[in-house]
Amino acid sequence: VIDLRAIESAATRLQGTAIHTPLLQSGELNEVAGGCVLIKPECLQLTGSFKIRGAFNCLTRLSAERARNGVVAWSSGNHAQGVAAAGGMLGIATTIVMPADAPRAKLDNTRRLGGEIITYDRYDEDRELIAKRFAAERGCALVPSYDHDDIIAGQGTVGLEIANEAHALGLPPQQVLIPCGGGGLSSGCAVALQSKFPNTSIVVVEPVAFDDTARSVAAGKRLRNAEDARSICDALQTPTPGERTFPIIQKRVNSVLTVTDGEVMNAMRFAFQYLKLVVEPGGAVALAAVLAGKIETTHRTSVIVLSGGNVDIEMFADIQQAQFR
Amino acid sequence: VIDLRAIESAATRLQGTAIHTPLLQSGELNEVAGGCVLIKPECLQLTGSFKIRGAFNCLTRLSAERARNGVVAWSSGNHAQGVAAAGGMLGIATTIVMPADAPRAKLDNTRRLGGEIITYDRYDEDRELIAKRFAAERGCALVPSYDHDDIIAGQGTVGLEIANEAHALGLPPQQVLIPCGGGGLSSGCAVALQSKFPNTSIVVVEPVAFDDTARSVAAGKRLRNAEDARSICDALQTPTPGERTFPIIQKRVNSVLTVTDGEVMNAMRFAFQYLKLVVEPGGAVALAAVLAGKIETTHRTSVIVLSGGNVDIEMFADIQQAQFR
Repeated sequence: VIDLRAIESAATRLQGTAIHTPLLQSGELNEVAGGCVLIKPECLQLTGSFKIRGAFNCLTRLSAERARNGVVAWSSGNHAQGVAAAGGMLGIATTIVMPADAPRAKLDNTRRLGGEIITYDRYDEDRELIAKRFAAERGCALVPSYDHDDIIAGQGTVGLEIANEAHALGLPPQQVLIPCGGGGLSSGCAVALQSKFPNTSIVVVEPVAFDDTARSVAAGKRLRNAEDARSICDALQTPTPGERTFPIIQKRVNSVLTVTDGEVMNAMRFAFQYLKLVVEPGGAVALAAVLAGKIETTHRTSVIVLSGGNVDIEMFADIQQAQFR
Repeated sequence: VIDLRAIESAATRLQGTAIHTPLLQSGELNEVAGGCVLIKPECLQLTGSFKIRGAFNCLTRLSAERARNGVVAWSSGNHAQGVAAAGGMLGIATTIVMPADAPRAKLDNTRRLGGEIITYDRYDEDRELIAKRFAAERGCALVPSYDHDDIIAGQGTVGLEIANEAHALGLPPQQVLIPCGGGGLSSGCAVALQSKFPNTSIVVVEPVAFDDTARSVAAGKRLRNAEDARSICDALQTPTPGERTFPIIQKRVNSVLTVTDGEVMNAMRFAFQYLKLVVEPGGAVALAAVLAGKIETTHRTSVIVLSGGNVDIEMFADIQQAQFR
């Protein structure tokens, strides 16, 4: 069970490793929102996304014996970089199963951080099967990207930092908006935030084509996304909520919002122009929801998590300049 | 005279207005530098640069009578936005004399923040004369962009924050690299930093075509830049060091470095790719100096100030993609 203590322990383990990212504010965003919006920029985190938090927490918890054989993970790119970086810091060999069409920056960085990469076809092959076969052959541990208590606790440190800093600022948030793929970040943050602020509303945001969490919450059971679903949010293309994450989301998440690719691109432009932050598509969905008016933000304090910034320059430039066409 | 007390008073006035920007770190930058590099990202400051610090400090110090007539300033864009925003917060009317070819984002934002704009030709007209004539006609106060004690003290809060946070982190900096135009930021930061860390080396960085500070320090007197000098660093195109700033720089600055436009562009690409920060050309010169190996950074703690992020998307995209051509 993930409780505040597990998250606080993860925070202690992460000290001196992950960056304690600040809460930022923007005059322009506050003006658009008609209220106070605190920004948690995990794009500024080491490896360009929050994923190193869970990966590092998970790897430090391995026994020396298990660590010796290395670890394997599958990931579209951010978890890959987190696992590779954490492995490098801890001296644990890492192998990552990644889609062949992952953003080049994510592939390059994973390799540079010391990860061995096995590529697969995102739409034809089963990454889980490839990773599990590899793990069995080599006797190494699997590091899931979200469906594991140590991962959830690690990602929950994002929520813990938000809670502590919002408290210090005297700005208890009425609502916190969190990008949601498999739900590791959302569920961990929900636990941390509601432990400190029981009345804070937890809102998760998904791409409209990957609205498995919205449908699963409505149905009361875990549903899958369509096989042919597509989105520019490569970081949020998970098939279904996790076994471990879904019960937490069911219990704690107050609403699930969806955003279109166009709304995401608009948010990336806003982040460039006014926040001076490079945000990747999947990292921009919470900002997109606020800018698109999908949630009431007037006369209250909201927090948005910008979960990552790993985007190739070609796509970034195209998205930025699309508004002028 | 600017002393630590003047800067601490400015910091008190700025509380709740300017953002206390964090010190960030990047694994990639530390690796390139071979040492620890702390990043002070003033591109994340309100209005996208540090300039609001000095402007707000200066405007709060006006008598009610003087404030009633409004203020006038000249600026290529960042000081313009700082003055306009500070005026908006304090209910003081602001007029800004800006070059007609200033980045569109800077012109648009100044207007949006409530500043009245008077444009002039950067290479043919004297902005100082235009502003002074306007001030005389309307009886309003001039807000210089660097050559004023209240401005220097306000910008010095950047150095104060660096000193306090580096102390808290247990990482006293051996050297701090600061972008230098007229010297308001450099001189204020030098005073604050050396009050706390007397042995910290203060290094200022200029575009190679605007090396007035380097030459002035060498000559022992204020020299001017060539009339036909050009640089992509629009924020650092000042004609000569200030009367108030130069004596401080002479006394406190340990070395002056220069960087080329190419080195600046390289730094902007690094900031996009690894720091996930949007940095404008003039804001990137300190990072450029580190990346180009213009200063020893191995086995020591350095701090770099990224002073602003106001850059048009067309120029940003061109610079980012230049490496792939």
